[in-house]
Amino acid sequence: MTGPDLRRIGDIAALVRAGGVSPVDLVQGCLDQIESRPRVNAFIIVLGDRAMDEAATAEHEIRAGRWRGPLHGIPVAVKDLIDVAGTRTTSGSAVPSTEAAEDAPLVRRLRNAGAIVIGKTNLHEFAFGTTSEESAFGPVRNPLDETRSAGGSSGGSAAALAAGMCFAAVGTDTGGSIRIPSAACGTVGLKPTYAEIPMAGVVPLSTSFDHAGPMTRGVADAALLLAVMKGASHAAMPQPPRRLVLGVPGPLFCDRVEDDVAAMLARVRGALEDAGHAVLDVEIENARWTADVYLHVMLPEASAWHAPLLERHASSYSPGVRLRLEMGRYVLAEDYLRAQALRRALGAGVDRALDGCDALLLPALPMGAPPLGAATVEIAGRTEPVRGAMLRLTQLFNMTGHPSIALPGGAGRDGLPRGLQLVGRRRATGRLLAVAAAVERQISGGPGSVGGGTG
Amino acid sequence: MTGPDLRRIGDIAALVRAGGVSPVDLVQGCLDQIESRPRVNAFIIVLGDRAMDEAATAEHEIRAGRWRGPLHGIPVAVKDLIDVAGTRTTSGSAVPSTEAAEDAPLVRRLRNAGAIVIGKTNLHEFAFGTTSEESAFGPVRNPLDETRSAGGSSGGSAAALAAGMCFAAVGTDTGGSIRIPSAACGTVGLKPTYAEIPMAGVVPLSTSFDHAGPMTRGVADAALLLAVMKGASHAAMPQPPRRLVLGVPGPLFCDRVEDDVAAMLARVRGALEDAGHAVLDVEIENARWTADVYLHVMLPEASAWHAPLLERHASSYSPGVRLRLEMGRYVLAEDYLRAQALRRALGAGVDRALDGCDALLLPALPMGAPPLGAATVEIAGRTEPVRGAMLRLTQLFNMTGHPSIALPGGAGRDGLPRGLQLVGRRRATGRLLAVAAAVERQISGGPGSVGGGTG
Repeated sequence: MTGPDLRRIGDIAALVRAGGVSPVDLVQGCLDQIESRPRVNAFIIVLGDRAMDEAATAEHEIRAGRWRGPLHGIPVAVKDLIDVAGTRTTSGSAVPSTEAAEDAPLVRRLRNAGAIVIGKTNLHEFAFGTTSEESAFGPVRNPLDETRSAGGSSGGSAAALAAGMCFAAVGTDTGGSIRIPSAACGTVGLKPTYAEIPMAGVVPLSTSFDHAGPMTRGVADAALLLAVMKGASHAAMPQPPRRLVLGVPGPLFCDRVEDDVAAMLARVRGALEDAGHAVLDVEIENARWTADVYLHVMLPEASAWHAPLLERHASSYSPGVRLRLEMGRYVLAEDYLRAQALRRALGAGVDRALDGCDALLLPALPMGAPPLGAATVEIAGRTEPVRGAMLRLTQLFNMTGHPSIALPGGAGRDGLPRGLQLVGRRRATGRLLAVAAAVERQISGGPGSVGGGTG
Repeated sequence: MTGPDLRRIGDIAALVRAGGVSPVDLVQGCLDQIESRPRVNAFIIVLGDRAMDEAATAEHEIRAGRWRGPLHGIPVAVKDLIDVAGTRTTSGSAVPSTEAAEDAPLVRRLRNAGAIVIGKTNLHEFAFGTTSEESAFGPVRNPLDETRSAGGSSGGSAAALAAGMCFAAVGTDTGGSIRIPSAACGTVGLKPTYAEIPMAGVVPLSTSFDHAGPMTRGVADAALLLAVMKGASHAAMPQPPRRLVLGVPGPLFCDRVEDDVAAMLARVRGALEDAGHAVLDVEIENARWTADVYLHVMLPEASAWHAPLLERHASSYSPGVRLRLEMGRYVLAEDYLRAQALRRALGAGVDRALDGCDALLLPALPMGAPPLGAATVEIAGRTEPVRGAMLRLTQLFNMTGHPSIALPGGAGRDGLPRGLQLVGRRRATGRLLAVAAAVERQISGGPGSVGGGTG
């Protein structure tokens, strides 16, 4: 028998329920962290008083035996792209926004399970970028190294989590916006299967690719939050096979990464093999189309949604976001539709790569967190735009809808985290989480583990 | 007690089952009709020998007590846009096509119910037109007046039916291609709710708008074929209310029709009111967007699908079809996506117009069958292109997915039929059919009936 694991929400929530820890102290601890790290700039709005009131109410309810659910009293941060009643959904933009009258359904479900929304996190404007630098509220800084990006677009959510400003966060992911900042900040981020979590009350970027998902400190927490946000009665994580079979997609994925990422992958692969798991080389067919297909669908979907706003408020957008939105206006419908058709072929390619595997194993990012302000990055001898590099390993699974999770894979020589990614079968997010939990155990603890200190 | 009604497939099939009529005679009768009217040009392929063999088999099976279903021994014609195993799906085009290895699922269901496919009907090339004049196999001619169009794109199916060359036909309808030729030929044509009948094995025109459906001599037959093609165990036609409430959409629909169509509508309306039904004036909100939204979705979807064929076989297309396909290549994705969004608003507009009504009542065509070769038509003092005029009253319900049925409304002063249209609630095609059957009774028989001779 071991004591409670205070890195796990499940154990903390049990303590809260038993009266061993007060929600007031949890919320106060988070608010103290937020106050102590203003340069991280993780939050656009901190709901301090409201969260403290809710914590006091939660404490009272729990004492009175009125336990509301598995998140009762747990402070959660919500990306400011998502409606929280009584706050403006700014989307990180200077474009005028209005106060939400209602919680987005996914937020309502978190609240119904007892969660306390501690604030709304900063992001890359309108979720349209990977560094969280272009925000009307200033850039998010990586709490592990404030000269670096926290990744994006859900950079504030990952930074808040990594800096202990919340126990879990909600992000959105259109091309990697949950997994990229999770990798950059050394946390866990889950993009579920497409449409698994309702997107009502979330400002769209590209409705074909948008996913909401949990950002947490561990895989078990991600499973818990997913269950709540999808409206399930409990977290489904079926027992994985004792001997996992993982497929590593080489071409276009693992062969174009920075040395520290290659080394991380090799360490993890070795540890998994040493523990008796099988790691195979696989290929994802047609993956070379990925970036093209992504742009031809994503850009015009974003432009179409933003067109009326752009007409009235063009100068309120960040220049980079505005440029990309203007570019989207020139995509032809025929190219959009052809890309949508190719997308189905890409999905079949991922399905075939998964054939005979429990999950795909690859990096989440080809590098560590880039320096703030960097326009390009050199990876494996090639200079490429930061934006393209950061999306390169994640965006395919937005297009195909496969569930995908980022988890810390260990530190690089710079001491900063490098992120691992696992990809599962569509509509089998629970199975992916079970595999991820097994891989997480292999990396972070027990004999033969390879991960460790990323802070 | 009355005897069997030989205009109804149900009654004919019962006679066949009882041995009172042989499928061989039914098929022979249809083949004789086809042979006697070659100028109608209703068929691209007549499956004479095969159909006669199947009829002999059916006769044998029925005698042996092996009844296969409600269409056993009934000759049915299939639009040559739909796969029938062992025949080329020409789509009415000179563009090279291949022999289908399998029946489309909707054809398989017809066969499983016992139907005999007598042939594949002529059509407007690739279903991309409303007159069935542009076909590599020559124009379809209206059997009621061979100088006139049979409508389109399912012109061959309607012509075959009106000329007694089959007992029922299958058509497809992207902007009206079932209802338009039904109106032009004085038959019944049903466009079900979107996605009610599977579209696999059917050459697409615009996947957002494409529907397959039955073309028949009466409403009961349409209900029977719908049930079979959708895979239902029986035709669901709930009893309609004794006092129907029908909504007539005036602006942009009934106010821009030729005098004979206005007179038909007035006669039908009067007869329904005399019989105690209520007929209200309603308005469909935002209906002025209809043609714009239609083109911005349909053109690029068609172009995207045809692009690889156009690259290799441009000169094999009819000039008009090719021109429209080339036009579609210039539509912007943003306009496509905006049109898709407006489409949802149009759907809500139709829903509101239906509020408190059992169905909408309007003409299917603003005029009768146009002369072959006519480029424009004058309606209510305005000259408009034939194509636009023919689509004008039907295309909205392809975009919104509401079930819609064309039925003969009586003859104009030229002796040619004018078509009525009824529109029901989405996913309530059975209720629409029940209302249509009541309206059909009112028009074609019984006291106060208004219809009659269209042949």
